Amino acid sequence: MTMKAMQVGLLGIGTVGGGTWRVLQRNAEEITRRAGRPIRITRVADRDVERARALTAGAAEVTDDAFAVVRAPDIDIVVELIGGYTLARELVLAAIEAGKHVVTANKALLAVHGNEIFARAQERGVMVAFEAAVAGGIPIIKALREGLTANRIEWVAGIINGTTNYILTQMRERGVTFAQALTEAQQLGYAEADPTFDVEGIDAAHKATLMASIAFGVPIQFERAYVEGITRIEPRDVAYAEELGYRLKLLGIAKRREGGFELRVHPTLVPADHLLANVNGAMNAVLVKGDAVGQTMFYGKGAGAEPTASAVIADLVDVTRLHTADPEHRVPHLAFQPDQVREVAALPIEECRTASYLRLAVADRPGVLAEITRVLAAEEISIAAMIQKAPACGRAEIVMTTHEACEAAMNRAIAAIETLPAVQGAVTRLRIEPLAD
Amino acid sequence: MTMKAMQVGLLGIGTVGGGTWRVLQRNAEEITRRAGRPIRITRVADRDVERARALTAGAAEVTDDAFAVVRAPDIDIVVELIGGYTLARELVLAAIEAGKHVVTANKALLAVHGNEIFARAQERGVMVAFEAAVAGGIPIIKALREGLTANRIEWVAGIINGTTNYILTQMRERGVTFAQALTEAQQLGYAEADPTFDVEGIDAAHKATLMASIAFGVPIQFERAYVEGITRIEPRDVAYAEELGYRLKLLGIAKRREGGFELRVHPTLVPADHLLANVNGAMNAVLVKGDAVGQTMFYGKGAGAEPTASAVIADLVDVTRLHTADPEHRVPHLAFQPDQVREVAALPIEECRTASYLRLAVADRPGVLAEITRVLAAEEISIAAMIQKAPACGRAEIVMTTHEACEAAMNRAIAAIETLPAVQGAVTRLRIEPLAD
Repeated sequence: MTMKAMQVGLLGIGTVGGGTWRVLQRNAEEITRRAGRPIRITRVADRDVERARALTAGAAEVTDDAFAVVRAPDIDIVVELIGGYTLARELVLAAIEAGKHVVTANKALLAVHGNEIFARAQERGVMVAFEAAVAGGIPIIKALREGLTANRIEWVAGIINGTTNYILTQMRERGVTFAQALTEAQQLGYAEADPTFDVEGIDAAHKATLMASIAFGVPIQFERAYVEGITRIEPRDVAYAEELGYRLKLLGIAKRREGGFELRVHPTLVPADHLLANVNGAMNAVLVKGDAVGQTMFYGKGAGAEPTASAVIADLVDVTRLHTADPEHRVPHLAFQPDQVREVAALPIEECRTASYLRLAVADRPGVLAEITRVLAAEEISIAAMIQKAPACGRAEIVMTTHEACEAAMNRAIAAIETLPAVQGAVTRLRIEPLAD
Repeated sequence: MTMKAMQVGLLGIGTVGGGTWRVLQRNAEEITRRAGRPIRITRVADRDVERARALTAGAAEVTDDAFAVVRAPDIDIVVELIGGYTLARELVLAAIEAGKHVVTANKALLAVHGNEIFARAQERGVMVAFEAAVAGGIPIIKALREGLTANRIEWVAGIINGTTNYILTQMRERGVTFAQALTEAQQLGYAEADPTFDVEGIDAAHKATLMASIAFGVPIQFERAYVEGITRIEPRDVAYAEELGYRLKLLGIAKRREGGFELRVHPTLVPADHLLANVNGAMNAVLVKGDAVGQTMFYGKGAGAEPTASAVIADLVDVTRLHTADPEHRVPHLAFQPDQVREVAALPIEECRTASYLRLAVADRPGVLAEITRVLAAEEISIAAMIQKAPACGRAEIVMTTHEACEAAMNRAIAAIETLPAVQGAVTRLRIEPLAD
């Protein structure tokens, strides 16, 4: 094979960048046999020039000037692994402007500036590939964009943040608190020093936003996503969920509805016997429901140097295989042809519909349950199951699940329940997804 | 969107063909938005012309002459859903000769004649797409061929036959015999009147053969696959497997080894806590181990009209999106560039290595176990676990698992064990896959 190598400029050679470098070197022969020509990182930009030089050992030109790499005439593809919104946006736009194809793992960037970036890429006739931005090594973008194109996709529900899945798994398996599990996750490297993006659900919302766009053919609209993290989850909620036949997972959900679609991230009770409930530790999985295919699931490592590099390099191979195709006949960035994206908006959370889990402390006296039931009935919310926990000192804990109801109605019901004299403190509410056909 | 429609000739409008027709009609708008132009079945060939006419209701030209459809100048893509080896081969080759792209769900055809078919397609510059040939609606061909291209794929292990997974699930959950479970599966439509291809593992071997070729960049070599079905599985083996922490699944396995690769289909004990062990009923799942990505799993419906149609239509969209690309720069049929396929042969089963499960009836007297252990030790096979079942009438049943050993050594050990005076009848042997990282 003597074809000219595709020349790649790598922006950022930290964890994922280092993994990309390593895998591309190690599997060079196999990757070339697949791609039809060698793929070589010939330029690297990193703030830490010394580290970059040590890693690349003379095999690539190293600089601290990322824009120089982006504009170098010999570079065919720019890989953006810097992260963040500002500099990354400028670099990606500059690369597109210079006619380079772009591969990025930057979900935050695409969730916030994706519409702009993809429009510019379209104008310039270059590809922006982002398999690594969602669920690490799992080829879920490709599955949604190409593998399931026959389907009207009804919903997507994913465990798409490894940190929170690790924490929730620890809380369930060992009964520890969120705070304990987080500290351990940080010690083990599963959570960052500032875990906000992960534990508050923001990272998952970035990814769910991208999947929603591809699944439904709508603009990227992170600003409309409902986002709720796992910081307030208590061990007893994990245990009660279990008792009711559920398991608690942080899900990113995109669901088609009349007149719009739901886009939400929150802790979710899922049936314990569903395959998704059994995705543990830092693993990721995305469940997709299509009208023809039914439920499909895609499982694997959602983070880490080499799993993420796996997705980055798959994109490099894709670009290498297809870059000579005329831009009109490439796979569209967001699965739907650019002129076929529909201006459909994500519904506000108040218009979303879910079943709920409610936990509340009440005075242990007759008639309390009847009062609560009456409030729910007034909002046309019906109860699916109920357990009452060990009354002690005249106080009982009621845990119940409801059938599907509108969020606004549930909010009103919860507010009304909290005003009942027998109810003590706030109602804890979690949402349930049956993940049924 | 006013682009000219892609015109499809459909060969066979039975279960999958009917599903393809239906889904393509129902989701026409969404599919067009993705593909960039309409995809229309304009000609249908079926032996049952009346049924075909009733289904298509005037929207397509119907004939019983499949060759006429293949050669019709207005047809861009031929969808082959006839099945079988002979006529299907002639039709697919005629379509390629006529410069048509081909989409097929015919795993048997490709497993047996794939090398010839793909070579001819390459010469003529047309695409032959076959996502529907493996695991129905699960986009596993795309995942292996495009989504995991960064990886040196170490092994693939899949539940790729729904009939046998349904039967094994029934045997486990309800303790019924293979014969009972098969009869029920036939009554429910999960098994055909002649279930040979499914229960003897042949269908799974066709699929495993195709996955091996794509995973490792080797020719298609069904004739070298080791194939063992589930007809001799007894309920007690299902139960003992469970007791030892395993679950019994029919797996199609392709595993890279020094100097070749293993290609085998057989009932397999897998760890009960592995996600793959929890794929039940008629569902399919394929586990792929790549050196960079680690383990990934792809799950969904492996058969049925619409799940299979989902894959057929995804291929139609792929062809529509990419048919203008010059043939040198399309995604290669078998993942590796045609001139980069290596003539590596599947190893004979005697050279494969697995851990084993052994069950044998012995005379219940001291020293028997020592004799058996000695035989195994002579072949350097070590025991992992052992249970001895309720001795009755001077007869006991020994169930043991061994560590990994060469098949030939295990065969010699079993033959030697069967000659021991204390051992009654034949040794039952099943293989174990730890599915470990």
